[in-house]
Amino acid sequence: MTDIGIGMIGGGYMGKAHSVAMAAVGAVFDTRLRPRLEMIAATSAESAERYRKAFGYQRATADWREVIDDPRVGAIIIATPQKLHREIAEAAFAAGKPVMCEKPMGASLADAEAMVAAAEASGQVNMVAYNYIRTPASQYARQLLREGAIGEITWFRGENAEDFLSDPESPATWRTEGMANGTIGDLAPHMLNAALALMGPIKSLVAELETVHHERPGGKVTNDDQVQMMVRFANGAMGQLHSSRIATGRKMGYAYEIHGTKGAIRFDQEDQNSLWLYRATGPEAERGYTKILTGPAHPDYRPFCLGPGHGTGYQDQIIIEAKDFLEAIAEGTPRWPTFRDGLDVVRVIHAAIESARSRTWQDL
Amino acid sequence: MTDIGIGMIGGGYMGKAHSVAMAAVGAVFDTRLRPRLEMIAATSAESAERYRKAFGYQRATADWREVIDDPRVGAIIIATPQKLHREIAEAAFAAGKPVMCEKPMGASLADAEAMVAAAEASGQVNMVAYNYIRTPASQYARQLLREGAIGEITWFRGENAEDFLSDPESPATWRTEGMANGTIGDLAPHMLNAALALMGPIKSLVAELETVHHERPGGKVTNDDQVQMMVRFANGAMGQLHSSRIATGRKMGYAYEIHGTKGAIRFDQEDQNSLWLYRATGPEAERGYTKILTGPAHPDYRPFCLGPGHGTGYQDQIIIEAKDFLEAIAEGTPRWPTFRDGLDVVRVIHAAIESARSRTWQDL
Amino acid sequence: MTDIGIGMIGGGYMGKAHSVAMAAVGAVFDTRLRPRLEMIAATSAESAERYRKAFGYQRATADWREVIDDPRVGAIIIATPQKLHREIAEAAFAAGKPVMCEKPMGASLADAEAMVAAAEASGQVNMVAYNYIRTPASQYARQLLREGAIGEITWFRGENAEDFLSDPESPATWRTEGMANGTIGDLAPHMLNAALALMGPIKSLVAELETVHHERPGGKVTNDDQVQMMVRFANGAMGQLHSSRIATGRKMGYAYEIHGTKGAIRFDQEDQNSLWLYRATGPEAERGYTKILTGPAHPDYRPFCLGPGHGTGYQDQIIIEAKDFLEAIAEGTPRWPTFRDGLDVVRVIHAAIESARSRTWQDL
Amino acid sequence: MTDIGIGMIGGGYMGKAHSVAMAAVGAVFDTRLRPRLEMIAATSAESAERYRKAFGYQRATADWREVIDDPRVGAIIIATPQKLHREIAEAAFAAGKPVMCEKPMGASLADAEAMVAAAEASGQVNMVAYNYIRTPASQYARQLLREGAIGEITWFRGENAEDFLSDPESPATWRTEGMANGTIGDLAPHMLNAALALMGPIKSLVAELETVHHERPGGKVTNDDQVQMMVRFANGAMGQLHSSRIATGRKMGYAYEIHGTKGAIRFDQEDQNSLWLYRATGPEAERGYTKILTGPAHPDYRPFCLGPGHGTGYQDQIIIEAKDFLEAIAEGTPRWPTFRDGLDVVRVIHAAIESARSRTWQDL
Repeated sequence: MTDIGIGMIGGGYMGKAHSVAMAAVGAVFDTRLRPRLEMIAATSAESAERYRKAFGYQRATADWREVIDDPRVGAIIIATPQKLHREIAEAAFAAGKPVMCEKPMGASLADAEAMVAAAEASGQVNMVAYNYIRTPASQYARQLLREGAIGEITWFRGENAEDFLSDPESPATWRTEGMANGTIGDLAPHMLNAALALMGPIKSLVAELETVHHERPGGKVTNDDQVQMMVRFANGAMGQLHSSRIATGRKMGYAYEIHGTKGAIRFDQEDQNSLWLYRATGPEAERGYTKILTGPAHPDYRPFCLGPGHGTGYQDQIIIEAKDFLEAIAEGTPRWPTFRDGLDVVRVIHAAIESARSRTWQDL
Repeated sequence: MTDIGIGMIGGGYMGKAHSVAMAAVGAVFDTRLRPRLEMIAATSAESAERYRKAFGYQRATADWREVIDDPRVGAIIIATPQKLHREIAEAAFAAGKPVMCEKPMGASLADAEAMVAAAEASGQVNMVAYNYIRTPASQYARQLLREGAIGEITWFRGENAEDFLSDPESPATWRTEGMANGTIGDLAPHMLNAALALMGPIKSLVAELETVHHERPGGKVTNDDQVQMMVRFANGAMGQLHSSRIATGRKMGYAYEIHGTKGAIRFDQEDQNSLWLYRATGPEAERGYTKILTGPAHPDYRPFCLGPGHGTGYQDQIIIEAKDFLEAIAEGTPRWPTFRDGLDVVRVIHAAIESARSRTWQDL
Repeated sequence: MTDIGIGMIGGGYMGKAHSVAMAAVGAVFDTRLRPRLEMIAATSAESAERYRKAFGYQRATADWREVIDDPRVGAIIIATPQKLHREIAEAAFAAGKPVMCEKPMGASLADAEAMVAAAEASGQVNMVAYNYIRTPASQYARQLLREGAIGEITWFRGENAEDFLSDPESPATWRTEGMANGTIGDLAPHMLNAALALMGPIKSLVAELETVHHERPGGKVTNDDQVQMMVRFANGAMGQLHSSRIATGRKMGYAYEIHGTKGAIRFDQEDQNSLWLYRATGPEAERGYTKILTGPAHPDYRPFCLGPGHGTGYQDQIIIEAKDFLEAIAEGTPRWPTFRDGLDVVRVIHAAIESARSRTWQDL
Repeated sequence: MTDIGIGMIGGGYMGKAHSVAMAAVGAVFDTRLRPRLEMIAATSAESAERYRKAFGYQRATADWREVIDDPRVGAIIIATPQKLHREIAEAAFAAGKPVMCEKPMGASLADAEAMVAAAEASGQVNMVAYNYIRTPASQYARQLLREGAIGEITWFRGENAEDFLSDPESPATWRTEGMANGTIGDLAPHMLNAALALMGPIKSLVAELETVHHERPGGKVTNDDQVQMMVRFANGAMGQLHSSRIATGRKMGYAYEIHGTKGAIRFDQEDQNSLWLYRATGPEAERGYTKILTGPAHPDYRPFCLGPGHGTGYQDQIIIEAKDFLEAIAEGTPRWPTFRDGLDVVRVIHAAIESARSRTWQDL
C-alpha cells in the first residue's frame, strides 16, 4: 500500500466534500493508493488554517502555488471558483501532477479548451468532478443503456432544478452575477453531463435562458435563473432539458426519464437510492415500472453496505469519485469524465447561449 | 324535472363513454335536466342497433341526419372521427340544437373556424369534450392558480404521453395515417387544452414533430409519433410540452408541473386522485410537497362519494362533463371549453406544425 | 334483453351508490338483465320522494314492505342501517326475491345466522355488498394468489383506517353509539372480508378494541374507535390487522401487504389503480416492486375504458358489484360473497370482541 | 484539538462501518476529539492484519485484551458477535475506558444486566450502537413528537423487515442458529429501539415468534424467521410491531407510522431522506401528508451537505453515531441510548419470548 499526498485548493462547500471523501475513501474501498490529507489552500491564512484543522490536513497556506509545488503533494483537487480553474490546472499539469477539477471547467470556452490542451500535453491524469452521475443508481442506468436493456432510445428528458433562489426576496450574491455562476453556467452542467453520459453527443439544440427576477435585495441580477432546451442527440433521439434555481419545491431535482423501444428508465436524485425500470416484456397484466432499490448488485454500492436498500447519500458519491480518481492515478489512465469530456459540456453551454441569443436552432 | 333526449352520433370508444355518462349523470348529480338516451347513429344499421342495445337507447339509425332532425332529440353529442365533426356540427346548429363535440374540433384549422362560426351564429350551447381537465384534482389545480396560491407562475411542464404504439411491431391502422390522427392531431390536444386552461394563452413556440417508426406491419406511417415544444405563455412564463404515443411505460401520462414564486403544483393522471401542492411558507423544516387526496372538499367530487380518498375514475370525468353540458343547456349559457376555446387549441397545433416545418419560433 | 325491476330500501350514502350503479351498469357491461329503477323506500314519504326524483326511480314509498311485495320489483337491495337487515332480508326471501345486502350482515351474530338460514332455505340469489374487493386491482391480487404467483404465503397485513372521527371535537352521532356502528362493527368488516378473500379462513386470533375518545360534544361514545388483531390463518400464515376511524391522515386506508416465498403483493385503496407486485425471480440487480397500473388486462376494467392507467373509482367498484349481482340472478347462482361468506366475517368480529374482553387468544 | 485512539474489536460488517465512520467523522463534524484509528482486533492475526490495512489502523492483534490494555487506545468499540459483548465490555470498563457496543447488548438478559452494572459502576461513557434512529429524518420525527406536533399519540406501527432469508433455499448459517441471531434477537431490536425512542416505554405485549422454514440446505434452523407483537405503551397508545428476515421484497423495511390527535408521521428507511408529516390544520381541501425531504434544517444533516434533498445514506448514520460517541467522551456524559436504554430493549425481547411461549399477554 502506497500513500499519496492530497493538495486541496479551496475549502468551501466542495473543498469540504472532497476532503471528507479523501479521509474516508481508503477505509471504504480498500484502495491501493491511500490518500494523505497533506495541504490545503484558501484565500487567507486564517481560513486556510481553519479548514486545515476542521478537515485534518497537515499544513495550510494562503498561496495555492505552494500546494502545487510541494513535493509531498502528489495530486491536486481544484475546488475554487471557476475563474481560477484554468490557471491552477495549468500550473498543476506543468508541475507534473494529476488533477481533479470541480465542474464546470473554467469560466469560459477558451478556459476549457486551454485546460484540455494543458492536460493532454502533460499526459497527467485529469478528471472533472461530476459527482451525481456516480451514484450506484445512475451508474446502473448507464450500464443498462450500454447493454441495450430498453432498446433503441426514442426520448430523453433531463432536469436539474433546485429552488435556492426561488424566493424573489433572496438577496443578490456572487451567485447572481456573471454567466459562469448562473443556471446555465453552474447548475445546468450537471444535467448536461448526465445527458451526454446517458445518451451520447448532442447534435443540435434550441434554447432559452431567462432571468425571472432582475432585481434582488442588494443589487441587480446579471445571470439567468433558468434555462430550457430542446435537443437532438447524435443517436437520433430527441429530448428536452430544463435547469432552474427558482424551481420552487425542488430541492435536488437532478432527474431523467428515458424511453426506448423495449423499455424505459426513470430517476430522480431526490430519491437517489431507487431506479425505476420498465421492460416491455412478459404478460401485459404484469407490466409496470419496477422500483429497484440500489444494493450490492449495483455499481460501487457494496463497499458502503452489504444490505440492499440501506442507501447511499450525497457524500458517498464524492467518495466513489475519489476512489475513481485514485484508481486513475494508480493505473496512470484517465477516467471518465476527463477534461475533454468536460469540454463537451462547455460546448453545449455555449451553443445554448448562442441559440438563446439568436432564437435559432444551433448545430454542434 | 324536465328531461331531454340525447342524440349520440358515434358508438365507439367515446360514444360508449358519453352514453354511460348520460345514463348515470342524473342519479349522480341530481341534475335539473334529465337525459333520456333517445337515438344513436353509427356507420351501419347493424352496428347502430348493437350500440342501441348495449347502451340502452330507444332507437338506432345508420343516418346521423335522422338523429339531428328527430324532434325527440334535444341535444347532440358528436363522437365520430374528426373529419365528420364539422358537417355534423353545422347541421346540428342549423337545426337549433346544442352540441357537445369530441376533441379536437374538426380535422383542420378551417373546419374548426367554420364550427366556431356556426356555433356562434346559432346561439346554441356548444362545448368541446376535453374531459381530463374535469377531474376533481385538475379542477382544484385551476382553482388554486386562479386564487394565486403559488404566486407568479415561472415555469410550466406539460405532457400527454402514452405507449399504445411504442412497439415497432404494432401494426399500421387508421391511427397511423393522416395528421389528424397523429400525436399532434389526436393526443397533444388534451395537453394543450390543459396548458391553456391552467396557464392562459400561448404567445410563441418552437416545436418538433417526429415519426420514429416510419414503417409498421401492414403499411407506412404517415403521421407523427411524438411532438416536443418550448413555449412562452402570455402570462410571461416559459415552459415545455411533450406528447407521445410511443412513450414506453406511460399508460396515461397526462401530467403537469407548475412552479410559482410562492409554491408549486404537480399532477399525473396515472394517480388522478392526488394533487401535489408545495407552499413556500412555514418553517423550512416542514416544507415539502403535500399529497392531497381528492375528496368532498374538491370540485365535483362529493356527488360521487362522501368519503375523501375513495377516488373517482376515467368514467367519472365524463359524467362531470355530461353534467356541465346539461347545466349549460338548462341555463342557456355555454360552458368552458366552448368551440372558441377549442379553436385556440387548434391554432396552437397549426403553429406547432409550421414551427416544426420551418425550424423557427412561431408567434401566435 | 330482459329487464328487472330494482327495489331499493334505503336512500342514504349506499342507497345512492347502488342506485347510480344500477343506472349505469347496463351501458357499461352490456348486461343480459337490464335493471329498471322501479321503487325506492325510505323512512318517510318525503325523503323517499326526494330520493326517487334524485336517483330516477319510478315510485317511492315509506314502507319497505311495499317494495318487497310489488310485482314489478324483481330484486331487492338493502341499504338500511344494520339493525333492519335481518327483517327485510327474511321478508324478501319469503317473497322469493334475490337480495343484495349492505355489509355487514345484521347487527349481531344471531341476525347473520338467521339471514343465512333464510337465504339458503329460499334458494334465492344472495350477496353481501363488499365492494372494495371488487376493484380491478384487488380482483387481480386474488387471481395472482390463486395462481400461486408469490408462492407459499408467509405474512399478511391488513388495514382499514380512516380519520373521519380523528378530531376529538367531532360530535357524538349515531356512529358513536352501539357496537354495530363502531370500528369493529362497521369499518373492520371490509378489512376482514379482504383478509378472508385473499388468505382464506382465520383459525385463531387475539384482539384489542379501544375507545380512545370516551366523550364527544353532544354525548358519550359507546363503541370502539379502533381495533387491532394478530391472527393465524388456516393456510398457516400469521398476520396483523388494524382498523381505525381515528387514523389521522388516512382517508381510505384499505390496504394490504402479503409476503410469499416467491414474491409479495402490496395494495392501498388510496391509489386504487395500482397494484405492487414483487417477484423473486430474474437478476438480483433488477428486482423490485413493480407498480402495475390497472388496465384492460385486469378483471372488469375493460368495460370502463380501453386505455390502461386511465383509472376506475369508488363508484365503479359498485357498478362491478351490480353487474355481478345481475349476472348471479340471470344465472340463478349465488356469487361470492354470499350471505354465508358474510357470516364468516361476523364470526371473526365476534371472536375479536371475545378476545378483547378476555385478553386471550381465541380459536375460530 | 485533542485526539483519541480508537480500539476496534471486530472487523466484519459493523467493524468496517465503525472504522469508516471514525475515519470520516472529524472532517464531517469538525469534532473536538479527533479519532485516531489505533488498533483493531479480529479472530486471527491474519484477518486482523487484513482489516488493519483495509481500514487504516496503526496496529492489529488477534487478542482483544491487547486492545483494551493498550495505553494509546482511549475508547473501545465492540463489533463482535453478541456472545462476546459482555466479557469485552466488562474488561473495558474495568480498564476505565468508554465503550460503544453493537446492538443488542449481550446474548441474554443476564448479559445485558451485567453490562449495565459494569458500565454504571465504572462511571464511563457507554452507548449502544442503534444507528438507524440517528438519520436526520428519524431524529426529526423524535423532535416533532417531543414538541407535541401531532398531539396525543393514538397508534403506532413499527416494522423491521428484510428478505435476506426469504428464499427457502438459502443455506443454514450462523444466522439460523441460536435465539440471539434470530429475528427477535438480531433484527427486531432496531425496531424496538425505535418504538421506545419514539413512543416511550412498553407496558404490556402479546407476541408470536415463528420459524417458517425449519430446514435449510446444510442444516436445521433453530431460531425464528419472524415475530409479531401487539403492544400497549405507557403513554396509553396501542400498536403493532413486526420484524422479519423473510419479508420478500423488503430490503430495509425499517418503518413506522404514528397517529396522533392532531397529525400523523410516516417513515420508511428505504427512502430514508423523506419524512411524511400530516397536520390536521388548515383548510380541509389542502390537507394531506407532506413529503419533507431532509436538509440543513434537520438534525445533523448540514455537516454532510448544505443543499436540502441531496441525501444522506447508511454510512452517514454511523458517522453521526460516531460524533455522538466522541462528544459524549469529550463531555464525560453518556448519550442516549446508554447501556441502560439498551437493557430496556432486551427486556421487551424477553417478554416477547415469554408471551409467545405461553400465548398470553405479558406486563413489563
